[in-house]
Amino acid sequence: MKAIAIRRGETKPTLVDVPRPAPDDGEVLVQTLRVGIDGTDHEVVRGTHGGYPTDEDYQILGHEAVGVVVDATTTDFEEGDLVVPTVRRPPAVGSNTYFDRDEPDMAPAGEYVERGIAGAHGYMAEFFTSPERYLVSVPEEFAEYGFLVEPISNSEKAVEHAFASRSAFEWTPESALVLGNGPLGLLTLAMLNQDRGPYKSFDRTYCLGRRDRPDPTIDIIERLGATYVDSRTTPVPDIPTEYEPQDFIYEATGYAKHAFEVIEALAPSGVAALLGIPEDWTFDVDGGSLHRDIVLENKALLGSVNSHVPHFEAAKESLAEFPDWFVDELITGVYPPEAAERAFETDDGVIKTVIEFDTL
Amino acid sequence: MKAIAIRRGETKPTLVDVPRPAPDDGEVLVQTLRVGIDGTDHEVVRGTHGGYPTDEDYQILGHEAVGVVVDATTTDFEEGDLVVPTVRRPPAVGSNTYFDRDEPDMAPAGEYVERGIAGAHGYMAEFFTSPERYLVSVPEEFAEYGFLVEPISNSEKAVEHAFASRSAFEWTPESALVLGNGPLGLLTLAMLNQDRGPYKSFDRTYCLGRRDRPDPTIDIIERLGATYVDSRTTPVPDIPTEYEPQDFIYEATGYAKHAFEVIEALAPSGVAALLGIPEDWTFDVDGGSLHRDIVLENKALLGSVNSHVPHFEAAKESLAEFPDWFVDELITGVYPPEAAERAFETDDGVIKTVIEFDTL
Repeated sequence: MKAIAIRRGETKPTLVDVPRPAPDDGEVLVQTLRVGIDGTDHEVVRGTHGGYPTDEDYQILGHEAVGVVVDATTTDFEEGDLVVPTVRRPPAVGSNTYFDRDEPDMAPAGEYVERGIAGAHGYMAEFFTSPERYLVSVPEEFAEYGFLVEPISNSEKAVEHAFASRSAFEWTPESALVLGNGPLGLLTLAMLNQDRGPYKSFDRTYCLGRRDRPDPTIDIIERLGATYVDSRTTPVPDIPTEYEPQDFIYEATGYAKHAFEVIEALAPSGVAALLGIPEDWTFDVDGGSLHRDIVLENKALLGSVNSHVPHFEAAKESLAEFPDWFVDELITGVYPPEAAERAFETDDGVIKTVIEFDTL
Repeated sequence: MKAIAIRRGETKPTLVDVPRPAPDDGEVLVQTLRVGIDGTDHEVVRGTHGGYPTDEDYQILGHEAVGVVVDATTTDFEEGDLVVPTVRRPPAVGSNTYFDRDEPDMAPAGEYVERGIAGAHGYMAEFFTSPERYLVSVPEEFAEYGFLVEPISNSEKAVEHAFASRSAFEWTPESALVLGNGPLGLLTLAMLNQDRGPYKSFDRTYCLGRRDRPDPTIDIIERLGATYVDSRTTPVPDIPTEYEPQDFIYEATGYAKHAFEVIEALAPSGVAALLGIPEDWTFDVDGGSLHRDIVLENKALLGSVNSHVPHFEAAKESLAEFPDWFVDELITGVYPPEAAERAFETDDGVIKTVIEFDTL
């Protein structure tokens, strides 16, 4: 079958021909419809994040997928069911504690592999197999955009943890800021602008980027009802004076200074969720001032990575609420597997691209 | 009546003679028994924290008090009741939102004054008045040590917020580290070593200081069953390798670098509560590495200041559980108001001192 992989020593994705996987009992064989490409995929291709499966000289890419069950073996799934797979799997050797409690997203380094990212083949192939418990059913209308459930689920987790961190007192957030206008930032901004769940508390939302108008991401930000903040004219620490202090901040830039600047941009009792994964970078901070500010204003900062099944379920609800125009504008390219290299190209017009293996 | 105050322009506490306050209806007149001295009092005396009441050229010190009701006016208290006052009060001008919801500890700067610290007279006087709602009843056996309820309440809040921040998943903390072997650090260490409430989950506790043996604080740490960590031989980032990664860290040093070093010392899914209030200090951090570590290991950091009435109630339970020897060893000096200057002296043998105005 066709698959898109990165080979050891190479820095571009390649179409490869690999054997179709055969499901064991308790596993499901899924025919892939679409697989999204995100920043992590680019990092895997560049070799700055993740790693190859043991003893393999290539890794099949992709961790944001939607597909159709074609062999349900002994599972409760039925042929024709539409499914989205989760990403983390138990390692070949080591503890399964976090998987046993259905919280693989909380597993520490070394206690998981990640399909398409670290130590396991991904979903960018005509078929993939998965144990039943790692597949989430989605409705038929998700055939085109169901691959977005995975990235949204990461933000659902971050929001859940952020609200939990403020649950010991009466927290009434009104303002929310997303750092980053890449696809994850825009998906999160759409999520925060819903009128359901914890999101309905946000009256005003902001999204930070560094683009000149006219720009399709700025158009999306404004059409969602949010305010675009240009980081070149308004650095993060200036946001409280230029706009307003932020009750919730979601960081999706991977820019390490943002992890510290958010403290200054938070409102009292505010919380920032960090999701970026920067490389080492040493710089100056006024640590005394930041430390004092966190304490005297009861601020919080938390890191969040990956997600588990209930976050996928929440993400399904969010995706169903998104306006149709939003996903249409977000997806700027749908490519066949043969055009993988082009699907991974990034230029100013590109927001999010997807590989289409099949359609319903 | 006698009171201990700091006068504008001076850097030592002085015994002053001021009029006895008269309670309004709904207020209580309290005869002070004991008032503890802590690091914040020293900062107020040095002029590095807090501020004088408007239009006053002195401030009565003290925010950790226990006393007896001598005039209950129209309140539900009765003469002879033992009480501990909370610290924050609404400002003369401004919003009372946080007081209306009984969460004054979550009020931002400018929306509160603090008795004995910022903008209001404290409790280091023979008598003080307070509205009924800011007084917490304590049992008669708290006459000597009831002033400890206030500092313990700050740690109860920090622990409550820390556990809340980890409530979205199955958190099973086992190890806890207190940074600082001052009185607040030792009180918190005793709290974490209780076999009740959330504390019973901690199997192993550690306390960081920078003292040579023999030292009374090290004796207390070890008698509590905790491990003493000397920061001169084991800096905070080395604690995971020298001892173990820490599920919970409580910072009570006010040393700004600790706010960042705790990230390295935390176990995956761990949380650090910061309580110190350092002055400005710019230094280098590997912000990229810290940011990545927070995210990939789902760590959290939160600031916590002050406390509200339910935290005082929790503190009463903790104080009642402390072994008798602990409070006896912790309080290294009980001084009459006339010896205030001496009560504020710090040398190696001093852990915590208290001014005694009266006894039951």
